[in-house]
Amino acid sequence: MIILGIDPGTITTGYGIINSDNNKLSIVNSGFINLKKEAFLPEKLKIIYNQIDSLIKFYKPDEFSIETAFYGKNVQSAMKIGYARGVSILAAVQNNIPVSEYSPREVKKSVTGKGAAQKDQVAYMIKSILSLDAKMKLDESDAIAVALCHAFRCRGIDSPAKKTNWKAFVEANSERVIG
Amino acid sequence: MIILGIDPGTITTGYGIINSDNNKLSIVNSGFINLKKEAFLPEKLKIIYNQIDSLIKFYKPDEFSIETAFYGKNVQSAMKIGYARGVSILAAVQNNIPVSEYSPREVKKSVTGKGAAQKDQVAYMIKSILSLDAKMKLDESDAIAVALCHAFRCRGIDSPAKKTNWKAFVEANSERVIG
Repeated sequence: MIILGIDPGTITTGYGIINSDNNKLSIVNSGFINLKKEAFLPEKLKIIYNQIDSLIKFYKPDEFSIETAFYGKNVQSAMKIGYARGVSILAAVQNNIPVSEYSPREVKKSVTGKGAAQKDQVAYMIKSILSLDAKMKLDESDAIAVALCHAFRCRGIDSPAKKTNWKAFVEANSERVIG
Repeated sequence: MIILGIDPGTITTGYGIINSDNNKLSIVNSGFINLKKEAFLPEKLKIIYNQIDSLIKFYKPDEFSIETAFYGKNVQSAMKIGYARGVSILAAVQNNIPVSEYSPREVKKSVTGKGAAQKDQVAYMIKSILSLDAKMKLDESDAIAVALCHAFRCRGIDSPAKKTNWKAFVEANSERVIG
């Protein structure tokens, strides 16, 4: 099963495509859509939609996974994320890909075992689970995380990393351990 | 010049199509997309996009006008409006229709002369300007209003109603006059 995860935004939209087969998880591709150079919102939305549409047509994902909910208090930020999420979800539904929505807390909990995990903890865990060593933007690792979250949900299991690798993260980041 | 105005929402999305030619304004069509029966957000967004796309392909508007900004404080409401606005704007830009954005205040001021006008005042004025007597939902009259706002902006004039018909509104609604 191919899963496309999207972390949408009007400055950067991250994407992560993973393969979840026979209890084996592997990365297919990941990256981000850079929207910094485009000043106009309508053009930004067109780029997000068309790029996700191209990813879907090329990688033919079976499932689409996206973060919803917003914990901030700024209504203008919420609306901008709404724009980007709206056209991202539309790209999936226009291609008849089932859409699953997860809250940031669900994604973090699924991947790291902790709903309040930091973004770099999430990045560390997805690299560990998928054996990645490349540097990547947080939008990209967040997109892979939401795809992984869906993979774990479909299997009805928690993250394998949760049980084995959290200890490794703590060991590798001992300066972050308080007390 | 044909102008398509949209008042987007995930429960109801209003639309108004007007013709602005040789200083004459007329209504082409108006209505609303009813999304109450559809529970799922991805399907709602698909319906909004496809219906606006159909309106564009049928009426071939030269310009697209939409309200932006949000004065509420609820971030979840802001994000929902963002979803609907995002896919509405996308329908325009995918059809190469120039998009103009106006704040609710600009629309009200343009149509009634007052930025703080009530929705029923806006409805009264658009009916007066376009000689409409049909009953319509507020989402529909708001969509016509944002199309009218763009027509007035393109001509570089204020609403003709502002100078002549406000008095008529007051006379027809004497119970609303304070003091």
